[in-house]
Amino acid sequence: MQKINKEYFNALHKLIEPGPLVLLTTCHKGRNNIMTLSCTMMLEQNPPFRILIGAGPWDFSYTALLKTKECVLSIPASDMAKEAVKIGNCSGDDVDKFTAFSLTPLAAKNVAAPLIKESIANIECKVIDTSMLAKYGLFVLEPLAVWYDAARKNKKTLHHNGDGTFTEDGKILNLKKFMTRWTEYL
Amino acid sequence: MQKINKEYFNALHKLIEPGPLVLLTTCHKGRNNIMTLSCTMMLEQNPPFRILIGAGPWDFSYTALLKTKECVLSIPASDMAKEAVKIGNCSGDDVDKFTAFSLTPLAAKNVAAPLIKESIANIECKVIDTSMLAKYGLFVLEPLAVWYDAARKNKKTLHHNGDGTFTEDGKILNLKKFMTRWTEYL
Repeated sequence: MQKINKEYFNALHKLIEPGPLVLLTTCHKGRNNIMTLSCTMMLEQNPPFRILIGAGPWDFSYTALLKTKECVLSIPASDMAKEAVKIGNCSGDDVDKFTAFSLTPLAAKNVAAPLIKESIANIECKVIDTSMLAKYGLFVLEPLAVWYDAARKNKKTLHHNGDGTFTEDGKILNLKKFMTRWTEYL
Repeated sequence: MQKINKEYFNALHKLIEPGPLVLLTTCHKGRNNIMTLSCTMMLEQNPPFRILIGAGPWDFSYTALLKTKECVLSIPASDMAKEAVKIGNCSGDDVDKFTAFSLTPLAAKNVAAPLIKESIANIECKVIDTSMLAKYGLFVLEPLAVWYDAARKNKKTLHHNGDGTFTEDGKILNLKKFMTRWTEYL
């Protein structure tokens, strides 16, 4: 897994803007955990980038996020679909999810939360704003580093349809020539 | 295009949670407009549902949203990709987008903003919270009605990768049997 340089940070858009299913890892009191997250949003399109995620007190990771102010957003490929759904349907309270789902934690550079080796990409993040937490359960994250496994064959992400069905990435359409106004993103 | 009943409002998840490209329509001072939006998020997973969208003063629709407090989120299919990108790369300031891109406005039930006949689905919304607007450019929307064109052949949505490339929906994976914790969404 290669680290993506600061100047390629707009790779973030490619990772988050399409609305993929995300695995969020935390490390609290020396204990790793993973939660599955289907609601995320690119909040700032220009540096410093911001990513919005939603989580609630019913999520075991909520306390870890609040206390450590750190996490990793890990993007699973479609060959990890079953594991991703199972991860989202049990609690870190009872289960050591890395062991239970045979995932490999890798040390991150800037946060204690681990990368997931099997994922397509991992984004190290710190929590920078919790002012929308009480009203809407929103954490604002600042991405610190992006890691990408260019050698991974299956790079198809998943999109949760909200009902236990997931849409896998299909064909990619290149419409760059029509992006005449937003050329800074090309 | 059929209206989806209140009890099927969780169809919303199927429309918004996968992070599809969205066309947002407004009607301000009798003038229809459309903007293209790639950053949206399901904010509340239980009724009353909430959808988060980001827009800025550089968007012509921003004023319309602020003044009318209404919009329609219209979900284009992949056969509308070129139009959707072109819509996002010109301004309602100069262009009557319905005419320019041969799209058909249909009257909505609860808002002055029009539905787009050619889309897969249309969600009538009102703006209910602008408290995160100054800091993050976020509007909180409450969906009022959902319309869905079940007869439309191509129902593949698009996901902007942030760089002028778009991923079309591929295969659908049914993993409902693993959704043991969140059965209320099945």
